[in-house]
Amino acid sequence: MLNVNKYVDINTLDKEAKKDYIDRHSAFIEVEKEVAKGEMLTVTVRVGDEYPHPDDFDHYISYVQLYNGQTLLAQANFEPGAVFGNGGKGNLRVTFNIMANKNLNLTAMAYCTKHGLWESDTVKVVVK
Amino acid sequence: MLNVNKYVDINTLDKEAKKDYIDRHSAFIEVEKEVAKGEMLTVTVRVGDEYPHPDDFDHYISYVQLYNGQTLLAQANFEPGAVFGNGGKGNLRVTFNIMANKNLNLTAMAYCTKHGLWESDTVKVVVK
Amino acid sequence: MLNVNKYVDINTLDKEAKKDYIDRHSAFIEVEKEVAKGEMLTVTVRVGDEYPHPDDFDHYISYVQLYNGQTLLAQANFEPGAVFGNGGKGNLRVTFNIMANKNLNLTAMAYCTKHGLWESDTVKVVVK
Amino acid sequence: MLNVNKYVDINTLDKEAKKDYIDRHSAFIEVEKEVAKGEMLTVTVRVGDEYPHPDDFDHYISYVQLYNGQTLLAQANFEPGAVFGNGGKGNLRVTFNIMANKNLNLTAMAYCTKHGLWESDTVKVVVK
Repeated sequence: MLNVNKYVDINTLDKEAKKDYIDRHSAFIEVEKEVAKGEMLTVTVRVGDEYPHPDDFDHYISYVQLYNGQTLLAQANFEPGAVFGNGGKGNLRVTFNIMANKNLNLTAMAYCTKHGLWESDTVKVVVK
Repeated sequence: MLNVNKYVDINTLDKEAKKDYIDRHSAFIEVEKEVAKGEMLTVTVRVGDEYPHPDDFDHYISYVQLYNGQTLLAQANFEPGAVFGNGGKGNLRVTFNIMANKNLNLTAMAYCTKHGLWESDTVKVVVK
Repeated sequence: MLNVNKYVDINTLDKEAKKDYIDRHSAFIEVEKEVAKGEMLTVTVRVGDEYPHPDDFDHYISYVQLYNGQTLLAQANFEPGAVFGNGGKGNLRVTFNIMANKNLNLTAMAYCTKHGLWESDTVKVVVK
Repeated sequence: MLNVNKYVDINTLDKEAKKDYIDRHSAFIEVEKEVAKGEMLTVTVRVGDEYPHPDDFDHYISYVQLYNGQTLLAQANFEPGAVFGNGGKGNLRVTFNIMANKNLNLTAMAYCTKHGLWESDTVKVVVK
């Protein structure tokens, strides 16, 4: 069975190694919470916040997906070492631009080639 | 939050409409359960068993993924109407070929553009 | 044989319909031309400049790829109607963020479900 | 500019190293040349014929695409080492199943993470 890791606030965790592990895999959505109808909405998916993730050939973030509700909008796939260089590390970011036609409930999913699927919190965007 | 639908045996369901809905989205893995080390293993992912799924421009199976444990092996993406023709329907099938190096725990995920994510049962393959 | 459409400056074209057809499919790379080593480089791939492309279920930009030289870095896939809404139109944009480790020769490829493959001009980025 | 390598018959080549290089990257389509309307058509894309390709983390076949004319039907992406195991090698195969509604002109594209894009010969399928 597939295990989808859900977001955990690392301030609730004690051990440094666990904070690092959880944080560097967590997917975050950066987006304005209110937008006028018909405007372009800039949606950035970021993987990790305070701790960087490796971009090694055998351990990297292979894809991120962006969903509205249960509906997939887009998926970005990355080749190993493409973002930070093999041996490099950092917080992967990809920015999609979506026209705001109606309210959105955005969720991101990130996939690490060693540590599986990581689902972000859902972010509500109100279209006025 | 993303909802991952899990496999349900439709013989446990009463209503015809529900049997149809569940069956046509269910992902199945067709594979030999035992294989000699180093042989090529033919792994077919099929979506739906007794009931066909539409392949309409606005309602189709957009991708299937094949995992070993929590590790993604491959993802096949389909364009709308590519498999059965827009307006057609059927049970999508895609066959991957994987070298059997060690025991596998295969799980498939299918994504329908109207009805979201559907996870197969996990199938164990023993490599002798 | 696959036909890869190459960038054409629409100012060299006479007919309005042709300008529209060429422009709305053309892939463009927006990026700084010089960057300090180790900095994050923001690379936007845009499809179309002056003329919008439809985002209809049966006619949309299905993916864009970003290459460095002949090496794929990333591919973003879009579901039909995901960006502008079915019936909407516009210039799709997706932004990748790549660490600048050495000089880059970036090329984008866009794929339209009705009009095939479109390759951008190559943009050189100097890493100082 | 992206270089799309086209199929070359290795019997026309002299040097063993070149035969190996060309063959192991070449994409082939295995399909029946005539099929009855409405039947399912089994289309296998294979990469390499006589010479195996590595499946190393830093050198592998990352995806294959199947086109009908200039229209993409499907794309299968593979994770590094997923097919033969890191350090293994062989001829990647993936099988799509397409309903035969009208004549097809099938072309495959394969992408190697070190040696770029490789386009197959086009195969015509007559639907009777």
